[in-house]
Amino acid sequence: MNGPEVHIRSVGTALPGPPVDNAALTHRFHMSPVWEQWIDTFIGTRTRHFSLDLETGELRYTLTDLGEAASRRALTNAGLAAGEVDLMVMGTSTPDRLMPATINMIAERLGIDGVPTYQLQSGCSGAVQALDVAHQMLRSGRYRTALVLGADSCAKHTDLNVNPNDLPTAEQVNGVLFGDGAGALVLSTEPAPGSVVVRHVFHRLVGLNRAPGQIVEWFGRGDRDSGRQPLSEDYKAIEESVPKMAVHILNELLDELDWSEGDIDYLLPPQLSGRMTAHIAEILDLPGAREITCVVETGNTGNALPFFQLEAALPQLTEGDRALGIAVESSKWIKAGFALEKS
Amino acid sequence: MNGPEVHIRSVGTALPGPPVDNAALTHRFHMSPVWEQWIDTFIGTRTRHFSLDLETGELRYTLTDLGEAASRRALTNAGLAAGEVDLMVMGTSTPDRLMPATINMIAERLGIDGVPTYQLQSGCSGAVQALDVAHQMLRSGRYRTALVLGADSCAKHTDLNVNPNDLPTAEQVNGVLFGDGAGALVLSTEPAPGSVVVRHVFHRLVGLNRAPGQIVEWFGRGDRDSGRQPLSEDYKAIEESVPKMAVHILNELLDELDWSEGDIDYLLPPQLSGRMTAHIAEILDLPGAREITCVVETGNTGNALPFFQLEAALPQLTEGDRALGIAVESSKWIKAGFALEKS
Repeated sequence: MNGPEVHIRSVGTALPGPPVDNAALTHRFHMSPVWEQWIDTFIGTRTRHFSLDLETGELRYTLTDLGEAASRRALTNAGLAAGEVDLMVMGTSTPDRLMPATINMIAERLGIDGVPTYQLQSGCSGAVQALDVAHQMLRSGRYRTALVLGADSCAKHTDLNVNPNDLPTAEQVNGVLFGDGAGALVLSTEPAPGSVVVRHVFHRLVGLNRAPGQIVEWFGRGDRDSGRQPLSEDYKAIEESVPKMAVHILNELLDELDWSEGDIDYLLPPQLSGRMTAHIAEILDLPGAREITCVVETGNTGNALPFFQLEAALPQLTEGDRALGIAVESSKWIKAGFALEKS
Repeated sequence: MNGPEVHIRSVGTALPGPPVDNAALTHRFHMSPVWEQWIDTFIGTRTRHFSLDLETGELRYTLTDLGEAASRRALTNAGLAAGEVDLMVMGTSTPDRLMPATINMIAERLGIDGVPTYQLQSGCSGAVQALDVAHQMLRSGRYRTALVLGADSCAKHTDLNVNPNDLPTAEQVNGVLFGDGAGALVLSTEPAPGSVVVRHVFHRLVGLNRAPGQIVEWFGRGDRDSGRQPLSEDYKAIEESVPKMAVHILNELLDELDWSEGDIDYLLPPQLSGRMTAHIAEILDLPGAREITCVVETGNTGNALPFFQLEAALPQLTEGDRALGIAVESSKWIKAGFALEKS
């Protein structure tokens, strides 16, 4: 492919409110110490942040709020003004509304106007999809600077009046697995001190003849009272498939770039949960690479996760360092990955 | 921009069930003849199609069903097999679920796998956004064939037990303005007899400091019982702004391509409603161009509309003919347009 190289100029992230630890969750839902230990060990995530106030149920942060905050930090870190942004791409599974798209409300807050915007409806591979769209648009030579966002919030599906004991295990898992957050990247065709080159991005649906691993519904005025289950997950399928898919993605990235395992300095593995991520990193088995994991503190923030990993990784990279990011979407099974190099 | 030319190889569309005329709607909601006349004259749309059975309320077609049907027709019309599709892009404001993305469920039905898929959360400019993403991806040279979809369904927001008299006028308008439907295009870097070249595609957010013209909410488990209004529209703003924006888009397309008004053989104007579309076509004032309008029969099918227009237009184009499509999204105000030429 022709076209200019694309550089990550900066990262910004945003988390709502204070961290909520497993003891606080257990207390809030009047559960037993056994439940807390189950979160500690079965999920392996220590804290997460919520857009809802857990005591009052008040919505304190919309996705627009989180996306705006992350974007402002990314723009500040890049030393760029909002007016220099030529296009915006965002991945989320949980927009504030169906219309207007949340990205356009974030643009309003930032004062960005007159540019194309794209909002991808996506799950855990959405950050990579958004990176892909922005990367391709910049390579076309028509644009110079892109703002790429990923954000998710579980606020609308959170029912604070529920007794977790009344829910199926998969829904209890959801309640403690996820957290809310947003991330943003500034991409540019112009390098700057400290910027990192995007060497490759890919994502690919691989769901044929496989049941979805995760389903999340939305309700309208007409079907609000329907009995449909709002969330469901096939944890067994996820535990079985995600580690294998992560290995395939790693190998595909190495093949595509003609890099060897020893060339990788930083590894950003899938961030399903603290326990699953530790397991996947073990299987990926890149002892020479430094693993960058955030899920233990942020919880699974969906489309925002890779931005938290990049925020931790990028300042550590030195000249010639190479980093690989791997994401798996278990909803209808998508393999996704990206490769970066500090030039 | 470099890269291969992109050709529209075929179109396919799908509408659920039989056409529902204004008399049938009036009868179903126990309204008066005055209401029927109001639809006839104020909306100017004669029929639309619904995914819900109007008598029983049963959901007869999902968005996946409609997208699958439109895609099959487009592939058949292009003489291509599903296995030849290298990427899929879809625009919708009303996905079946938040996850998995509806496009991935459509891929499953078609037997498409191992390709990148993108689902844009978008309103009336979504078909153009989807065309733009596919166009750019094909121009990169990495792909040969793209399946581009646009689809919308108002089923989830339709409450058959409502008395329209109890709703604000804007919501009554929504109930008779919209219809359900899907469309699909096959794009290819390889021409074929009858194919049409995509000369230009653009869309641009222009919503800064302007309130949204349309808001559509979704509800989750936690906020199903909130009193939020699910739909709202600012009809006055839409009536004032859309015609002006359509003129700007026309002029921008002509400027970009260095075409004059007399060069345009076919005009695909915005399809808000029968009455508004007639008004906009009058203001666009291209007497030498044949206007292609479908909204009077299909209703406003959102992201699907341009596909119905293209289905009517493309068979009429002869060598050297030029067509312009114009779309305006009133949610957060997006200008969008595309230009085609039969080579």
